[in-house]
Amino acid sequence: MSEKKIPYKIYLEESELPRAWYNLRADMINKPAPLLNPKTFEPATAEDLAPVFCDELVKQELDETTPYFEIPEEILNFYKMYRPAPLIRAYCLEEKLGTPAKIYYKFEGNNTSGSHKLNSAIAQAYYAKKQGLKGVTTETGAGQWGTALSMACSYFGLDCKVFMVKCSYEQKPFRREVMRTYGASVTPSPSFDTEVGKKINAEHPGTSGSLGCAISEAVETALNKDGYRYVLGSVLNQVMLHQTVIGLETKTALDKYGEKADIIIGCAGGGSNLGGLIAPFMGEKIRGEADYRIIAVEPSSCPSLTRGTYAYDYCDTGKVCPLSKMYTLGCDFIPAANHAGGLRYHGMSSILSQLYDDGLMEAVSVKQTEVFEAAEYFARIEGILPAPESSHAIKVAIDEALKCKETGEEKTIVFGLTGTGYFDMMSYEKFHNGVMTDYIPSDEEIQKYTKNLPEIK
Amino acid sequence: MSEKKIPYKIYLEESELPRAWYNLRADMINKPAPLLNPKTFEPATAEDLAPVFCDELVKQELDETTPYFEIPEEILNFYKMYRPAPLIRAYCLEEKLGTPAKIYYKFEGNNTSGSHKLNSAIAQAYYAKKQGLKGVTTETGAGQWGTALSMACSYFGLDCKVFMVKCSYEQKPFRREVMRTYGASVTPSPSFDTEVGKKINAEHPGTSGSLGCAISEAVETALNKDGYRYVLGSVLNQVMLHQTVIGLETKTALDKYGEKADIIIGCAGGGSNLGGLIAPFMGEKIRGEADYRIIAVEPSSCPSLTRGTYAYDYCDTGKVCPLSKMYTLGCDFIPAANHAGGLRYHGMSSILSQLYDDGLMEAVSVKQTEVFEAAEYFARIEGILPAPESSHAIKVAIDEALKCKETGEEKTIVFGLTGTGYFDMMSYEKFHNGVMTDYIPSDEEIQKYTKNLPEIK
Repeated sequence: MSEKKIPYKIYLEESELPRAWYNLRADMINKPAPLLNPKTFEPATAEDLAPVFCDELVKQELDETTPYFEIPEEILNFYKMYRPAPLIRAYCLEEKLGTPAKIYYKFEGNNTSGSHKLNSAIAQAYYAKKQGLKGVTTETGAGQWGTALSMACSYFGLDCKVFMVKCSYEQKPFRREVMRTYGASVTPSPSFDTEVGKKINAEHPGTSGSLGCAISEAVETALNKDGYRYVLGSVLNQVMLHQTVIGLETKTALDKYGEKADIIIGCAGGGSNLGGLIAPFMGEKIRGEADYRIIAVEPSSCPSLTRGTYAYDYCDTGKVCPLSKMYTLGCDFIPAANHAGGLRYHGMSSILSQLYDDGLMEAVSVKQTEVFEAAEYFARIEGILPAPESSHAIKVAIDEALKCKETGEEKTIVFGLTGTGYFDMMSYEKFHNGVMTDYIPSDEEIQKYTKNLPEIK
Repeated sequence: MSEKKIPYKIYLEESELPRAWYNLRADMINKPAPLLNPKTFEPATAEDLAPVFCDELVKQELDETTPYFEIPEEILNFYKMYRPAPLIRAYCLEEKLGTPAKIYYKFEGNNTSGSHKLNSAIAQAYYAKKQGLKGVTTETGAGQWGTALSMACSYFGLDCKVFMVKCSYEQKPFRREVMRTYGASVTPSPSFDTEVGKKINAEHPGTSGSLGCAISEAVETALNKDGYRYVLGSVLNQVMLHQTVIGLETKTALDKYGEKADIIIGCAGGGSNLGGLIAPFMGEKIRGEADYRIIAVEPSSCPSLTRGTYAYDYCDTGKVCPLSKMYTLGCDFIPAANHAGGLRYHGMSSILSQLYDDGLMEAVSVKQTEVFEAAEYFARIEGILPAPESSHAIKVAIDEALKCKETGEEKTIVFGLTGTGYFDMMSYEKFHNGVMTDYIPSDEEIQKYTKNLPEIK
């Protein structure tokens, strides 16, 4: 390869970092439906949300009109410790595929938490500190969010209580130790510390836990503990707002080199990384300033966008959190046991759900063995060992690049590489040993929980 | 904190990356003593080394006069995938310590192998490929080197056979899976695939292996396999040569902002990262152009510089490799069982040994509990979770910064943060659980193996 005009890795200058988060809702013509109070089914007010969430975050959650929220200096200073994240030109992958497409990926894994989750964790910890709180509670499944939050809390001197889904707690002791390094207390869920935990332990002795149950335990703890609030790593509008630093940096980097994306691809679980990546591009699309193909990629074993129902549903199994209108598989849906990695949430961010319903973006689902094939292929060519979640986007980016090879089109493909797979080697091991399997739920399984969604007038 | 003149992270432009490795030996007044043929005790010739090492690497190993070796474009292109490594201004650490010192660290952990080892792995793989070889063999202990080499071999399509010390193989299955992701074959050592492995297994049934044994197995395999050579991740002159990209980038970054280091600190096991970091600074010091305090930090449980003997010794337990004149604890020395992490080699790079003997650098040893204290302290303030090895340098950098606090001196401290601790969480767990202990060998233990060093006329 000869000298390239565009570097392998575009690092913005510190002065080029975004100074404000972008609130896509301000530009959306059809606004996402409001959260509902789980008791009254009325739109949730700031007062409804205040016992659970920090005041400033409640404001961000409910604000549909303010286009930009200035990033406080304290958060900006923390961002400078690990951002800008590089926008990487995948020269080696392009060459290997023999595609005329130009491929870029925004890599969010170069921080100790290993993923983009830190972008929102530090913001949520900051607002908790500013409100004079003692600490926060949360849940974590795969562990990325819990790790990110423990780092953020450590930085601001906040207590951090993490309920970790029991099977992850046992299978990922290293994740647990990273959180302990940052001073967090990590409790396997279901625990005997909460009423909901005790109840589930009594009803299902020896259960390995679920994300929905861990959420309920974390919320209960926050409600009962003076000076604590609950924080969440995805799904919510506030989280997507903070994650727009991904997309804003990406756009600035592309603009700097006169590049224009044609296709933007991201994996989608709760939707925060995808939402953050696409936000500024989607804004242009809505305002008619540019056009982009935007593709959400989800696991075929947890296909909320591609096979779910667009309706109001509970955000958690315990039904203590507000309801959200979203593409959902039902709040009791749990992916099959062979599903590895994250992207296992039953629903999808209400913003992304609305955009998808409006036909502004596409969605595809992919099988996990083909995801791990793409992951390993990518690792060997581009060096970075990707998280299973991120590899969903890799799979579809490669597919699109190969289509360009067929047609000869020189499209510019941008995808989000949300994190590293350092803590997912057990799944890689299954893949290497040929014992990884796929699962596509039947229509009956999909309808099992969606036929009982709450009836909202 | 207000706006800073110098960014938190200095990323050089792609055009500012080093184009050549710097051969410090060319500037050394007292050259390091030559390697000796283990059979004749005569200086090893290129012919002696050719069956074990790649031809081009043998040239680099033996060359004491060429000041710069141009980095081949293929290696440069790979470097661009993960370099420049950032030089980070530790603003948060400075503030927390309340020191007038300015602290910088060069972070080499932002690549999938998680450490600086990749800098030499890709070079060695390239020369093996260029020579038309089929593959390479090596050993790995903690796993950083094996991971780096597997990535490098994958990139160039070379076979990679890694002998992994058995206890690491069993205790670090994730490291093993990363290597497998990159297509390497990983064999626990001692194995039944080599004569030396069979012998050790017969003599010590159930042994958990040692680095020295794994080296001997890898060398034997390379010697017996057509189209294979052995490669090593530290100690050798060639490795230190490749690692000078660390120091060259560091110096360019400091110069760019008009900063001058006063103290340069690095951890030292075999010496390649320290040697690479300090090379351009040491060159200036030798040439009388500048003065620097240079400090090597080693574990008190494996104190080759601070308590070893400067003499010729074997590089491996099996005594099949050449002899090197170095500070050594004896080739049969193995650190106590409670020693966590790397930095467990019995000797020290002959270049660094000579520089230390000439009084051009200092050395200190530190206890592992204080190293992990420093590691956790650093993680909570600077965000990055450091490798145990790197944390030796952190410990001494903090000590020096606190001295500046006492004296009020505004010194500039630069240290090498060689890698991340993602795969060392078992050691962190011991530390968190309060069961980590220290070990300082007695004088008798130190003398046990050094009193039997080979007699060289």
